[in-house]
Amino acid sequence: MNFFDKALDLDSADEGHLRGHTLPEWANMVGPFGGITAATLVRAIEAQPDVHGQPVALTVNYLAPIADGDFDIHTRAVKTNRSNQHWIVELSQDGEPKTSATAVFGLRRDTWADTEITAPQAPAPAEIERAQSPFGVVWFDNYDLRFVDGAMPVHGAASDSSTTTLWVRNNPPRPMDFASLTAVSDIFYPRAFLRRGHFMPAGTISMTVYFHAGAHEIAAQGDGFVLATARAQRFSRGYFDQSAQLWGRNGTLLATTHQIVYFKD
Amino acid sequence: MNFFDKALDLDSADEGHLRGHTLPEWANMVGPFGGITAATLVRAIEAQPDVHGQPVALTVNYLAPIADGDFDIHTRAVKTNRSNQHWIVELSQDGEPKTSATAVFGLRRDTWADTEITAPQAPAPAEIERAQSPFGVVWFDNYDLRFVDGAMPVHGAASDSSTTTLWVRNNPPRPMDFASLTAVSDIFYPRAFLRRGHFMPAGTISMTVYFHAGAHEIAAQGDGFVLATARAQRFSRGYFDQSAQLWGRNGTLLATTHQIVYFKD
Repeated sequence: MNFFDKALDLDSADEGHLRGHTLPEWANMVGPFGGITAATLVRAIEAQPDVHGQPVALTVNYLAPIADGDFDIHTRAVKTNRSNQHWIVELSQDGEPKTSATAVFGLRRDTWADTEITAPQAPAPAEIERAQSPFGVVWFDNYDLRFVDGAMPVHGAASDSSTTTLWVRNNPPRPMDFASLTAVSDIFYPRAFLRRGHFMPAGTISMTVYFHAGAHEIAAQGDGFVLATARAQRFSRGYFDQSAQLWGRNGTLLATTHQIVYFKD
Repeated sequence: MNFFDKALDLDSADEGHLRGHTLPEWANMVGPFGGITAATLVRAIEAQPDVHGQPVALTVNYLAPIADGDFDIHTRAVKTNRSNQHWIVELSQDGEPKTSATAVFGLRRDTWADTEITAPQAPAPAEIERAQSPFGVVWFDNYDLRFVDGAMPVHGAASDSSTTTLWVRNNPPRPMDFASLTAVSDIFYPRAFLRRGHFMPAGTISMTVYFHAGAHEIAAQGDGFVLATARAQRFSRGYFDQSAQLWGRNGTLLATTHQIVYFKD
């Protein structure tokens, strides 16, 4: 089993209660990579016997760093409608809340459809060198990252633009699903690093993901690369936002995702 | 007292428990305007004696229509850190959950700052005629809306673009605060109406607001107009997203806001 699926391997305790544990392979600067935590919460809902539909929207709030070791996840279906279902999920360690989330699952049905935006221009992943983690962050090794634009500012150059575009896929490759797409939503390093040309304390406080693709469209991506592009809109008094799109190799807009990040600089 | 403040006039019951009631003046097609519900939840947190900091992020999930009458709001501070505080809020009627939300409140401190995007070009509000509600929706009367671009498609013309830009302020005017800015985040009619050139069943499922402005910057707007602009990125199988910015008259980016909407067409 690869480290992605191993991280999402939860034990079912009581109804709506699951147990998991952190893996050293997903370590970030403080606690695990936020994307793997978000993916774990999606998987926890998917594992519920009364789940209704597929992920449509997810908001994850990072309350406090998750320590190395076991964690508990409590899921609660707050409301089940004919065509959708609303969840509240909480992750804790020894009774201390660490992460909270709300999720909307829903049915998808045929309607008029259109993608109004276009993917950024990018050379094929094979034409770009694979990125190395600039400060030895462990979880980077679980991804194959190829920067098209806005790579980490290792040379100390500030940028006028906060835009980063990169190809990303799981390493080793695995078939894409809602959980892996959720994790990729948090793949971007803090936009303030790029604008300022240096590292600083920064971390995601809250992340929202809107899943535009259903299970079939996601499965059609196979284990291929996702083209991920993100930018900030405003940096002010310790916080900035980030809006991003995740595109399939075949040009499908799989997800749009937003977050608010704290920083000190 | 104007209808905005009247809608937010909550009675405190027990600790973390407030009671309010719907007003006919805020009626939408089904239940009250989602923006006034979101604003009410922000106000409920602001009213808590242990509140720490100002609104930074808010996600509101619309579970089921709120019926005319009384409602209960339960607020819970899940985690209080030195510089921020995480909340879970639930609105119910007769024990039936109707709305859930998570919110991050936080302190603001001096940092490097920049607004990376620019406001849309727009004539002054005085140069634009005030919009009338095209199908007699009651809550419209609580706002002065002046469309710059992408007004309601009353003539049945489909548009290639989902962008709407408008000036908006409370009617009667009142000083801007976090609650009123929250309500304005939901001011846009469904983007699918504009793209399709006709009305259809549609409603917000989940809305997220990131507050870029602190209390001083918001107060500096007085009771002035906000320039609000929104667009969709993808419409697919019953859902579409919307990303929007709210700009102060003085060019301050006050908030960015996102939502996922269901539609049938």
